[in-house]
Amino acid sequence: MQGVKIVTIGGGSSYTPELIEGFIKRKDTLPVREIWLVDIPEGKEKLEIVGALAKRMVKAAKLDCQVHLTLDRREALAGADFVTTQFRVGLLDARIRDERIPLSHGLIGQETNGAGGLFKAFRTIPVILDIIKDMRALCPDAWLVNFTNPSGMVTEAAIRYGQWEKTVGLCNVPVISQKKCYEILGLNEEKQELFFQFAGLDHFHWHRVWNKAGKEITRDLINQVYSPENAGKYQIVKNIKEIPYNFEQIQDLGLLPCSYHHYYYLTADMLEDQLEEYKDHKTRGEQVKAIEKELFELYKNPQMDKKPEQLTQRGGTYYSEAACELIESIYSDKRNLMVVSTRNNGTISDLPYDCIVEVSSLITSHGPEPLNWGSFAPNVRGPLQLQKAMEECTIEAAVTGDYGKALQAFTMNPLITSGRIAAQLLDEMLLANREYLPQFQSKIAELE
Amino acid sequence: MQGVKIVTIGGGSSYTPELIEGFIKRKDTLPVREIWLVDIPEGKEKLEIVGALAKRMVKAAKLDCQVHLTLDRREALAGADFVTTQFRVGLLDARIRDERIPLSHGLIGQETNGAGGLFKAFRTIPVILDIIKDMRALCPDAWLVNFTNPSGMVTEAAIRYGQWEKTVGLCNVPVISQKKCYEILGLNEEKQELFFQFAGLDHFHWHRVWNKAGKEITRDLINQVYSPENAGKYQIVKNIKEIPYNFEQIQDLGLLPCSYHHYYYLTADMLEDQLEEYKDHKTRGEQVKAIEKELFELYKNPQMDKKPEQLTQRGGTYYSEAACELIESIYSDKRNLMVVSTRNNGTISDLPYDCIVEVSSLITSHGPEPLNWGSFAPNVRGPLQLQKAMEECTIEAAVTGDYGKALQAFTMNPLITSGRIAAQLLDEMLLANREYLPQFQSKIAELE
Amino acid sequence: MQGVKIVTIGGGSSYTPELIEGFIKRKDTLPVREIWLVDIPEGKEKLEIVGALAKRMVKAAKLDCQVHLTLDRREALAGADFVTTQFRVGLLDARIRDERIPLSHGLIGQETNGAGGLFKAFRTIPVILDIIKDMRALCPDAWLVNFTNPSGMVTEAAIRYGQWEKTVGLCNVPVISQKKCYEILGLNEEKQELFFQFAGLDHFHWHRVWNKAGKEITRDLINQVYSPENAGKYQIVKNIKEIPYNFEQIQDLGLLPCSYHHYYYLTADMLEDQLEEYKDHKTRGEQVKAIEKELFELYKNPQMDKKPEQLTQRGGTYYSEAACELIESIYSDKRNLMVVSTRNNGTISDLPYDCIVEVSSLITSHGPEPLNWGSFAPNVRGPLQLQKAMEECTIEAAVTGDYGKALQAFTMNPLITSGRIAAQLLDEMLLANREYLPQFQSKIAELE
Amino acid sequence: MQGVKIVTIGGGSSYTPELIEGFIKRKDTLPVREIWLVDIPEGKEKLEIVGALAKRMVKAAKLDCQVHLTLDRREALAGADFVTTQFRVGLLDARIRDERIPLSHGLIGQETNGAGGLFKAFRTIPVILDIIKDMRALCPDAWLVNFTNPSGMVTEAAIRYGQWEKTVGLCNVPVISQKKCYEILGLNEEKQELFFQFAGLDHFHWHRVWNKAGKEITRDLINQVYSPENAGKYQIVKNIKEIPYNFEQIQDLGLLPCSYHHYYYLTADMLEDQLEEYKDHKTRGEQVKAIEKELFELYKNPQMDKKPEQLTQRGGTYYSEAACELIESIYSDKRNLMVVSTRNNGTISDLPYDCIVEVSSLITSHGPEPLNWGSFAPNVRGPLQLQKAMEECTIEAAVTGDYGKALQAFTMNPLITSGRIAAQLLDEMLLANREYLPQFQSKIAELE
Repeated sequence: MQGVKIVTIGGGSSYTPELIEGFIKRKDTLPVREIWLVDIPEGKEKLEIVGALAKRMVKAAKLDCQVHLTLDRREALAGADFVTTQFRVGLLDARIRDERIPLSHGLIGQETNGAGGLFKAFRTIPVILDIIKDMRALCPDAWLVNFTNPSGMVTEAAIRYGQWEKTVGLCNVPVISQKKCYEILGLNEEKQELFFQFAGLDHFHWHRVWNKAGKEITRDLINQVYSPENAGKYQIVKNIKEIPYNFEQIQDLGLLPCSYHHYYYLTADMLEDQLEEYKDHKTRGEQVKAIEKELFELYKNPQMDKKPEQLTQRGGTYYSEAACELIESIYSDKRNLMVVSTRNNGTISDLPYDCIVEVSSLITSHGPEPLNWGSFAPNVRGPLQLQKAMEECTIEAAVTGDYGKALQAFTMNPLITSGRIAAQLLDEMLLANREYLPQFQSKIAELE
Repeated sequence: MQGVKIVTIGGGSSYTPELIEGFIKRKDTLPVREIWLVDIPEGKEKLEIVGALAKRMVKAAKLDCQVHLTLDRREALAGADFVTTQFRVGLLDARIRDERIPLSHGLIGQETNGAGGLFKAFRTIPVILDIIKDMRALCPDAWLVNFTNPSGMVTEAAIRYGQWEKTVGLCNVPVISQKKCYEILGLNEEKQELFFQFAGLDHFHWHRVWNKAGKEITRDLINQVYSPENAGKYQIVKNIKEIPYNFEQIQDLGLLPCSYHHYYYLTADMLEDQLEEYKDHKTRGEQVKAIEKELFELYKNPQMDKKPEQLTQRGGTYYSEAACELIESIYSDKRNLMVVSTRNNGTISDLPYDCIVEVSSLITSHGPEPLNWGSFAPNVRGPLQLQKAMEECTIEAAVTGDYGKALQAFTMNPLITSGRIAAQLLDEMLLANREYLPQFQSKIAELE
Repeated sequence: MQGVKIVTIGGGSSYTPELIEGFIKRKDTLPVREIWLVDIPEGKEKLEIVGALAKRMVKAAKLDCQVHLTLDRREALAGADFVTTQFRVGLLDARIRDERIPLSHGLIGQETNGAGGLFKAFRTIPVILDIIKDMRALCPDAWLVNFTNPSGMVTEAAIRYGQWEKTVGLCNVPVISQKKCYEILGLNEEKQELFFQFAGLDHFHWHRVWNKAGKEITRDLINQVYSPENAGKYQIVKNIKEIPYNFEQIQDLGLLPCSYHHYYYLTADMLEDQLEEYKDHKTRGEQVKAIEKELFELYKNPQMDKKPEQLTQRGGTYYSEAACELIESIYSDKRNLMVVSTRNNGTISDLPYDCIVEVSSLITSHGPEPLNWGSFAPNVRGPLQLQKAMEECTIEAAVTGDYGKALQAFTMNPLITSGRIAAQLLDEMLLANREYLPQFQSKIAELE
Repeated sequence: MQGVKIVTIGGGSSYTPELIEGFIKRKDTLPVREIWLVDIPEGKEKLEIVGALAKRMVKAAKLDCQVHLTLDRREALAGADFVTTQFRVGLLDARIRDERIPLSHGLIGQETNGAGGLFKAFRTIPVILDIIKDMRALCPDAWLVNFTNPSGMVTEAAIRYGQWEKTVGLCNVPVISQKKCYEILGLNEEKQELFFQFAGLDHFHWHRVWNKAGKEITRDLINQVYSPENAGKYQIVKNIKEIPYNFEQIQDLGLLPCSYHHYYYLTADMLEDQLEEYKDHKTRGEQVKAIEKELFELYKNPQMDKKPEQLTQRGGTYYSEAACELIESIYSDKRNLMVVSTRNNGTISDLPYDCIVEVSSLITSHGPEPLNWGSFAPNVRGPLQLQKAMEECTIEAAVTGDYGKALQAFTMNPLITSGRIAAQLLDEMLLANREYLPQFQSKIAELE
């Protein structure tokens, strides 16, 4: 590759300035020649606003790179080297429904977990498979860098059903966890004074940490971060409330949990908190909608030619940074460690060979090479195996539109209470999402 | 063996007449020479009542067999060929607590599932390990036939921690499921007109059915038993309310669930039902306590020398029948198929090699030889793997008294809502069971 | 099924009288309505001789069954219930080449092992796949009962490549081993006084034995049969010379080997013996050719209406008996134990899930249900895993005609010395078998 | 660690100057404070010669480091940070016996493969376990860096039987293979223009190669290195004759073999070659003995204060280099890729979880973190699984002195013809090695 062509699906996203900034920061190591920001007609206005900002940023940075804005995905994809995906089917209103409908039944309402996460998968997976169909024709050698959520399931659909082996899934949570860990210990990230190993699934992983002297400090960190005296002191991921874990349970884990485990380890407490937000019409999606409005106002400012600081409040921070880092690593065969969603192939012995896992991997020019992890103890093994099986059912339902399979996924999901309530919730959400679920049309017609 | 010596721990149980009847029925194939009914001082009165009935039954049946009653376990165990266990640590009051305390927190309260099942394991496992210690010294070649609940976990503790390889776990649910199936189809059980294959864990298994012509009729049965039109029509297990499953979910399974799956597939609905019983002080344990009272009144009748019909209402029917059948099968190398809890050894590929599973097995004179099952699809695989991992944590906690491990099991259990509520429930139950939990004494002291 | 239609491919085989006898013996339990003996034009004369004998046998036994002789396979297959295969591509001359060519290079020459076995697979597998093609059209519900050697590989090809799930592979070795064991111990086979469990691959399995009292007597048998003082005393399989095993090695096994392990555990000694036979033109194939000649002379006798005793000398005895037993067991849902080649599905944990293994199985009307075996110790595990992998390469080569894959199988096979000699042997055998190897035509053309 | 203490067991080895040179080269990154060269009384003279050279080298390089020579292993071990092992039990004469005795029976005679390799394991493993016993007492935190052959089996014994988790096994073959590959392609090793992934066992591994652009070039390399036109052109490992592989077999592999596969893929041809050397008394051991003599003459030269060039001819080149690199990587948490023998833990899905494998690993301050490999195709899987199982039997025999297990290993080994010849060879070698095999004393007494 001599000069890289990047295509970003969902280019009108508010994240785009971080992505552009990422390319600007890497101008000496990653020669980006063209950036194509693609969106759908409904996103045209946002695309134009953020696209104009992107152009200003590139110009201000004197990057030798063209930024294109288009609603024609196929035009953009032709000859692409990397395709990144950050689209949101149904926009923020769909997210708000994913949150509010479950909550109206007294169940966790969240973008990537519980019923909301499953419906985001149902809406997104048909689109990613469609994009792959275009890529097969137009850029058969391109890498697909997915950070559309639920990132793990979308990546699994792309690889196993779309058969696009050159897909890598990304998430900002491991990036943030590592940064926080350096911060807590007052150590230097640039010097790689810590060694991290992550394993699990997207938004459902655990990690171990070693220091420069080769000593594992996982338990020290558990004691520091999760002990009753420090409980809730460290805020890891912006959008997840740090309700203190039951300390002895985390000690029994012997591994550091990710922030999303709050939903699984503290379901009742998180729900209580969410129901407050629900009542006040301040679910995360509703908050983000307000933030986004402000952001786009900022983006319109023709003087602005940098990523505005306020974007950091948005929640999805470091997603785009991770994407740029991944692209650079593949481009330059950097062989650094990143946490990505990729084929298991035995990396985690407890999970099916063919599934997608999120694991620490060496990033090479031929893609991620995961560090072997092996087996988990039963305390992690069981929940992890359930989660993956639930994901498998969800993805299959998303691809086939099989109602029984969707109901099965709802029954299996630990954040959805099983029984008639699960069926009712499923039906209500199918109806509410009718325009984004072509695969479920016959069931939806039946429900109407 | 020439004439078999049977020792029954918990001999004062109301089930004992069924056991005696089972031996009487088999007098031509299983020459029982001695039956020792063992109980603890608190059970002396019941032991004497039921023991007297047992003696009358044996006499009436002209069985050449002596029935001994004793409170001295070691005296009984010496030279035993088969030891059966049907004891209940803490008696029915402990069961009632296992039901009512979780329900008071709005959680499923049940003898073998959820928090109640875990506490039954915590109370029972130290005792079974103690019995094994005696067996090692006094009857090193005896078979241990366990039908004390939670039968699967108690069996796993006996085999893996007690290292008593000659342990077989029993359950009446598969027996009943098969009988019901014959009844529904109007077929003949004696002629073995159906072929069943069960796999999973105790109270957490699934099965397939074939007819004499070699056709699999599992899906036909699903359609017949669980279709909306027949919903709830067939009552399988007496003590589990037949709230209709979500039909499409069961269709997606493609396997017949066991009755205990109601708790997992219909958690909200079962809970609603239980909360009614809770309010009315009619939880299952409370009902059974009343039934038992009546039963023992009946047992006292010096005219009675048969198993009274009313025992069938008791709920645990066929447990003792299964035990007699198993003992006969081992004794006579019968090579019939029974569903037992035994070493996995790869029978179910999805579960750890060393764990205990409940599977269809050929019963030989050297013990059960399981039919291979292989892998499950994700819709069963995930919940099954979670359940086993949760059991592993529970058993480890029961053996070691590790509080963090117990809390982990509570966090993993699908019938316990995770979070502070789980920790509170655990603590409350530890205190309520303090006299039966020597292994948790230091934690209990801390809580007091 | 009301009256069973049997089709026997290779009906002109000298084994046919045993097959007919098997059906006659079972006339009360297995109502055979039609037997179709099918052969190819080259086998017409033998078909007519043995077919006439079959008719006389059926008549003498007053069996209400028609025997048809035909060269038209498709005519025979229409509506069949069971198809048995006992054909030999290239007839005995091909077998003789399979023996003599490797021996001419100083390597084991044997019908089912070493280079000879691989070439028998190369010749047979395309034909079995062809038969399946006909079956799919003409008798889509029929069972395929394969006892054409190499029985395990042919069965694997039928199931995995032919996708004929209703295939069962048979072998006479386990039948004979069990009979010998009863004979050695002076026990009663009818009364099932022993319990056997076999596991491995066809002609490459091991077994354990228990007595009626539940005691494992495997080691006792090892000591009795293979101790230096009794070495070679017991002749198990007629056509395999009982050169004494190295006793300590068999003791280390802790399992009873099958007779074919002589080729693997005593390669040098067996080769020495075979080279003698080679020199004298008395390889097994050459001997059998003579025996067959005599047999067919006997068969011609119009007075003869029973299976002649001399057939027992033929070596393949009990193959047809096993086939009849299997057919009866499936027909009547007999649920007896037989050793068959069937899908692994985790039965042997050390081998691929999808491969075919030879294991003790309960025979039901829906086919074999294997007893779980689990893992082997390294002393069996390693050679077994090599053998299966070698079989996988062989079958793939047989299906695709890939020369590199065939050479790989030759390199992996423990009875073929690797190196240039392996390549030369492969090439020579390809040329010698050219008329039976359509799949290898382009390579053969290159060699010519 | 502030200044590292290195202990080298077998310090009198001719390799020692390479080791010293390795430390000198790394003086800026690896502060070696003390080097203790340890040997046994029989090696005293060599220790003094090579030790004097080592001291001159250190002095000439102005390294701030003390070199100690001792026959007291315990004195040396106290407080060690790294212990390297390069000893040879029985010295070169034992190696020569390992070569000549098998060859006298017409079997491959080689230091690490076949009967010779097994006997080297039998002699070495008791000694490594003894060293570990000392380490446990004297330097409980030290790393054990083993490059005593058979390196994989010795490492497995150290980790699984010695339970010294901080053991890493090394081999020079992967180092050389990589260098050769760079040389063949004219690429730059310093710039890491290629990416290698190795997996398998010590002296029994395969590898894949990718170029900087992310293209896998394994097949291109196979075609270049092993095509008939280039056959034998590239000499990879000095002491293994490059007899051309059968090209189509290597193509079928799709992986690059290691040089030691010549013994397995070309057994007949390698044997022929070895028998020539045997006749001429020029087996490798005999050659090395002559080379060593010359080397020690050179070492005696008091003017010499560098590693003499002639050492490169010795065959074991890069072993010590690899050891120094490993030590530096652990010390500095370098996170570079090296090929080492370490715990499998699922890295190679086809092999037991607990065994030792040789795989590409990231070297960190807490030890090697292997890149996941996954499963092999059957063509590699089978031979690899056999080899590991054979190693397991060998190691167990080496630890326990179980003769049956040793005979089993001989029977399984692909380079030993099975049968009476194997037993005779084993017995002859037991007698010839009697003074080095304390564990086999009772069997040896019986043979004498």
